[in-house]
Amino acid sequence: MTLSQTERKIIENSIRDIKDFPQPGIVFKDITTLLNDKEAYGVLMNHLYHRYKEYNLDYIAGIDARGFIFGAALAQMLGIGFVPIRKKGKLPYTTISEKYSLEYGVDEIEVHIDAFSAQKDAKVLVIDDLIATGGTANAAATLVNQSGAQCVECCFIIGLSFLDGVKNLKEKTQVYSVIEVN
Amino acid sequence: MTLSQTERKIIENSIRDIKDFPQPGIVFKDITTLLNDKEAYGVLMNHLYHRYKEYNLDYIAGIDARGFIFGAALAQMLGIGFVPIRKKGKLPYTTISEKYSLEYGVDEIEVHIDAFSAQKDAKVLVIDDLIATGGTANAAATLVNQSGAQCVECCFIIGLSFLDGVKNLKEKTQVYSVIEVN
Repeated sequence: MTLSQTERKIIENSIRDIKDFPQPGIVFKDITTLLNDKEAYGVLMNHLYHRYKEYNLDYIAGIDARGFIFGAALAQMLGIGFVPIRKKGKLPYTTISEKYSLEYGVDEIEVHIDAFSAQKDAKVLVIDDLIATGGTANAAATLVNQSGAQCVECCFIIGLSFLDGVKNLKEKTQVYSVIEVN
Repeated sequence: MTLSQTERKIIENSIRDIKDFPQPGIVFKDITTLLNDKEAYGVLMNHLYHRYKEYNLDYIAGIDARGFIFGAALAQMLGIGFVPIRKKGKLPYTTISEKYSLEYGVDEIEVHIDAFSAQKDAKVLVIDDLIATGGTANAAATLVNQSGAQCVECCFIIGLSFLDGVKNLKEKTQVYSVIEVN
């Protein structure tokens, strides 16, 4: 089910551009203005629900922390479980972890080792608010696959198509961005 | 609408105790096992929906980061906006912030200054996964009220009733814990 032009405009218009955050030269896509606009939030979640209800997913995995927002709401709508993929040190039980490169240095995310184990060969959707270079999403998809589950798609509210994140991630899994920013 | 004994058991049994996390002597209440159990997650969210649908809320405000999970799902079910209350430095636009005490030192949370401004005298529910000493929730309720909105209740999945968090927070707002741990 594709987004209508009207729905796309409602979502696009609800996202706020913040110049020079978190550092000079970056235009940050602020999705808090989408979330506190009940019409835009409703349109977005309804669209995601209709897209993913035919996927027969077992879990939604959301990336810390904005991915929790969209992922937990979608999991509830689909009647399936939600799994948080967290920054290093936040999860209390045994984890598996994956490092990824940042512009300067490396970062690390992790998931509970038994997060997907209740369902053999679980089908998992990974979700985050935005894909830029794709390092975090790539690490998240790797973690899902290493857990014995299957990352069937990565979903983003915003895709920055002037970067190579989507292209690189497509070598590993399907990728869907609700809106694309050039 | 009260939780039935069966529903309470389903929720309680889905929460995992982790000893000595994040430090020796603490028993951490792990809600990731609730979230990845679709039955328990569904029972919980259905209960929250039925409790809050009569409140005529305008927004759910979720506390960084586990409060995002329950808060965003509940806002979607109620068809209202969601507002993230974040740790210092994560929000891109102008914020108001509030400090609160930890066992050692202080921490700070903040919210966008215009988060609730689309609705005059907005009625807001603050949500988090757990209340212990209540410092974060107290600061969150203060931020909501300072924003020109009204914190009508703070909701937690787990209340640790052996601490004074709930008692102290009740001086400021209504408090509801889905399950209580003694």
